[in-house]
Amino acid sequence: MKKKPLILVTNDDGIYAPGLRKLIEIARGLGKVVVVAPDTAMSGMSHAITVKFPLRLKKIAEEKDYVEYSCNGTPVDAMKLGEKVVIKGKPDIVLSGINHGSNASVNIIYSGTMAAVLEASIDGIPGIGFSLLDYSHNADFDAVEDYLTIIIKGVLQNGLPAGTCLNVNIPAVKKEEIKGIRVCKQAKGRWEEEFQERIDPHNSNYYWLTGVFKNGDAEEGTDSWALANNYISVVPVHVDFTDHKVIAQVKKWNLDA
Amino acid sequence: MKKKPLILVTNDDGIYAPGLRKLIEIARGLGKVVVVAPDTAMSGMSHAITVKFPLRLKKIAEEKDYVEYSCNGTPVDAMKLGEKVVIKGKPDIVLSGINHGSNASVNIIYSGTMAAVLEASIDGIPGIGFSLLDYSHNADFDAVEDYLTIIIKGVLQNGLPAGTCLNVNIPAVKKEEIKGIRVCKQAKGRWEEEFQERIDPHNSNYYWLTGVFKNGDAEEGTDSWALANNYISVVPVHVDFTDHKVIAQVKKWNLDA
Repeated sequence: MKKKPLILVTNDDGIYAPGLRKLIEIARGLGKVVVVAPDTAMSGMSHAITVKFPLRLKKIAEEKDYVEYSCNGTPVDAMKLGEKVVIKGKPDIVLSGINHGSNASVNIIYSGTMAAVLEASIDGIPGIGFSLLDYSHNADFDAVEDYLTIIIKGVLQNGLPAGTCLNVNIPAVKKEEIKGIRVCKQAKGRWEEEFQERIDPHNSNYYWLTGVFKNGDAEEGTDSWALANNYISVVPVHVDFTDHKVIAQVKKWNLDA
Repeated sequence: MKKKPLILVTNDDGIYAPGLRKLIEIARGLGKVVVVAPDTAMSGMSHAITVKFPLRLKKIAEEKDYVEYSCNGTPVDAMKLGEKVVIKGKPDIVLSGINHGSNASVNIIYSGTMAAVLEASIDGIPGIGFSLLDYSHNADFDAVEDYLTIIIKGVLQNGLPAGTCLNVNIPAVKKEEIKGIRVCKQAKGRWEEEFQERIDPHNSNYYWLTGVFKNGDAEEGTDSWALANNYISVVPVHVDFTDHKVIAQVKKWNLDA
């Protein structure tokens, strides 16, 4: 580990989120820090990128070993702007979060927090996304500082294979109730959704997306299991959607015949 | 296969895209069709979902065994509205596209076309996303009708494991140059990006995202290889980001010590 690693910090809850402030504080204890975060909340933006309108950066703060910008883009845009426009090179690590709410199980695919980190991994930069299973603005992020520092130091010291990053989720319990850290695989799960239908004052229908998360995978060794048992879950993730075990099966269809 | 399968069709280029019209035409030759597509182009929206504002559906057309709606949401929203509000149940298959441009290799993660299909797979519905490697509005979708029909029939007849869907990409060549269909894995690749910086009339900087795709994976058996060799690529995909081979490696860090 270099004495002062260069750390790029972003999130999807926006520049004013308490979770971002806690992550910045932790990062500043470990190295030089560049922050580029969306200027508004970007939950559910997934891996969206902005191609229809131009992006802007706004400098919020600058101190020794620290600079902070907001941008008008998505979390993936923010990470890219940090790398390409602010740093003009690769940071040693990208940290994203601390997200308000779970990005375990299938939630990773909707997550802007994890999208920024996955984008870093595509560019060969190690990254970690952090999420606390507490949606409230007053979520207690102090309890987790030691654990997050351990995990960030773990990546800085050991590195990660090119193309891999970490999805870290933290149970919403008191510090003394956290049993430790478990390296896991992603649990199967899905949202059982429905649309609430309403009628507007002009007599037209509209729909609000609502849903309840259903964990379909109680297997030990999954992130959902770890979190349910008060462990912090760490899942190594990458951008390969291939369902390798199904390739042989589809080949048997003889589509080419 | 049921005599008249119920087919839900969507896309990310929007309700007016020629690629959607061709896919609707093919689908109507195979079964009952429900279309729900975004009312504007949604390229690069990835797996974004809409939670900040309400969604609306607009009926565009209704005929025997056919109904067509536009919506003001993302491709994932459109798929969900089709399933939950229009059909109020599961279609036999979800078809998305035909996208104008490649969703092979790492492009899948930015793709709204594939996000709609991946969302269907999370809900246990088989799905196929189709993309033609031609960005132009005048792209020739006629050349590929027979191949798409073969692949759709393949899924309707054989089914897909729960949670798996297909990412189909078609080379932008004349029909007689297409050599056939190859079942593949996702190639490694990335966009080499830069931001074009400009100055607005008020003397503020702004940035346009630009990039060139770099295929880092010429291996036979990948989708990039198949497309470069004039094959249609079919990749079975699913929503599991776990980098399974790295779990043991990170466990050795003894984060819990």
